[in-house]
Amino acid sequence: MTKITIIGSSNTDMVIKSGHLPAPGETVLGGDFFMNPGGKGANQAVAAARLGGEVHFVCKVGKDVFGETALQQFKNEGIHTRFVTQDPFAPSGVALINVDAQGENCITVASGANNCLSIADIDAASEIFEPGDFVLIQLETPLETVAYAAEKAAKKGLKVILNPAPAADLPAELFPHLYAITPNETEAELLTCIHVKDLISAENAANILLNKGVQHVIITLGAEGALYKTAYETEHIPVSKVVAQDTTAAGDCFNGALVVGLSEGMDFPEAIRFACKAASISVTRLGAQASMPKLEEL
Amino acid sequence: MTKITIIGSSNTDMVIKSGHLPAPGETVLGGDFFMNPGGKGANQAVAAARLGGEVHFVCKVGKDVFGETALQQFKNEGIHTRFVTQDPFAPSGVALINVDAQGENCITVASGANNCLSIADIDAASEIFEPGDFVLIQLETPLETVAYAAEKAAKKGLKVILNPAPAADLPAELFPHLYAITPNETEAELLTCIHVKDLISAENAANILLNKGVQHVIITLGAEGALYKTAYETEHIPVSKVVAQDTTAAGDCFNGALVVGLSEGMDFPEAIRFACKAASISVTRLGAQASMPKLEEL
Repeated sequence: MTKITIIGSSNTDMVIKSGHLPAPGETVLGGDFFMNPGGKGANQAVAAARLGGEVHFVCKVGKDVFGETALQQFKNEGIHTRFVTQDPFAPSGVALINVDAQGENCITVASGANNCLSIADIDAASEIFEPGDFVLIQLETPLETVAYAAEKAAKKGLKVILNPAPAADLPAELFPHLYAITPNETEAELLTCIHVKDLISAENAANILLNKGVQHVIITLGAEGALYKTAYETEHIPVSKVVAQDTTAAGDCFNGALVVGLSEGMDFPEAIRFACKAASISVTRLGAQASMPKLEEL
Repeated sequence: MTKITIIGSSNTDMVIKSGHLPAPGETVLGGDFFMNPGGKGANQAVAAARLGGEVHFVCKVGKDVFGETALQQFKNEGIHTRFVTQDPFAPSGVALINVDAQGENCITVASGANNCLSIADIDAASEIFEPGDFVLIQLETPLETVAYAAEKAAKKGLKVILNPAPAADLPAELFPHLYAITPNETEAELLTCIHVKDLISAENAANILLNKGVQHVIITLGAEGALYKTAYETEHIPVSKVVAQDTTAAGDCFNGALVVGLSEGMDFPEAIRFACKAASISVTRLGAQASMPKLEEL
């Protein structure tokens, strides 16, 4: 099994569930409060570690109670935390999440220390980069750091997987460093200007990403599973139907599981089936990291 | 100087300032996070302690990091915390506060442990009740507890001041136990069905509250100061003009200062002037407890 380095964000989600979402100027009383670990990087690191991956997490938190708690939780999950650093000035990343009785939400995010994850942090972590290792990155840390990490890892012979979430434009120079990219429909549309609404449009979008220089394209399609495409191969991987309770972090579960499958030597279609299975379990449970399945459940 | 017992809420305010407030379904990135102690009870206890009051605070927090932090902060302010108890099950009270670039906000509150402040807690705290002491209560804990505390304190010969905030209907039996009540315009309107828009309407509302059995009515009027009324006396206490930066917790500062003034033997008009002065300083500074002035500033 090869090593997995996940580079990304760690947030603390502060959630209040109440009868309705507050309008401007309004105070809504009577909610219930939950504090959950979150951030796409941390979610994917936890998903991968629970499924048996050897995970090194590179992220930045604050020197505060939220950062300390996150660090301890990563250790409890068996994640290597040598490159989880604490910024002396910035607060830990925080998301305020309001959820109403129907499950509709509105969210504000203060990235805090995630915005301080720097090229120097990547340079420090790169000492563990070994050819053939996997690197998994998302877009909740500075784009400059993401681009630098992808290039450095690719040049050292690592396989770089980018989960381009949340949706954002990417520089053209980034794509040729990517072993794989894993957008959902919305993210694929932003990157390709193709409205992804079915398998045909997903295939067209995938072709554009391949032309930009990515080797393997996986477009996730929610309940429809995923489309896998390379220059030589196209496959639709369906997912079995489940009753979804909470789709929070389903994409993070998919990405964490995918990289574990690949690191264990599965080919892409097999790893994607493994990832779809993991994600379909996660949506039947509440929460982000709390919903990530363990290997024995798959 | 007589003793002041403040019975009320303690919250932790989680604030994100971002460009705009999130709409349903929206995630707003790029905000700044601040965590501040709050809750009307705690704000008033801090205001009173900073102005030299001998303050005993009765409240309930959770057995969590927010409760521990609040307890330590009360001690740092010189507040007696023997009756600040930690509920073993409920989380500490939390408010999620989104603020946009123009200062508009939307808020959700999860009362948590504040909802567990019980009659038994009042019974425990009542052992320090002495005739002539002051008790200051607000409406962020269960109404049943508020009503019980007011009746018990009044029967023991204490002077009960109710700050009826946030605005809520009150049972008729409560008013005769009140030495004083301190609504703002909105709260006065809810309690009296009189639209309070000027001194005349405030006086009419005050008369209704006196008829309900309250001894001293103080209606706060924002930049217009306050109206003081008893069965025999009416006085408008104006406030000097200031450039307001942040009116958060101005009412809490007023109430904390008022009870300190009274506990030091000032008559009502004098104590109200003292409270207006304190509140007018607090609005020139950002934050809730952070904005509360010290005695030497008045």
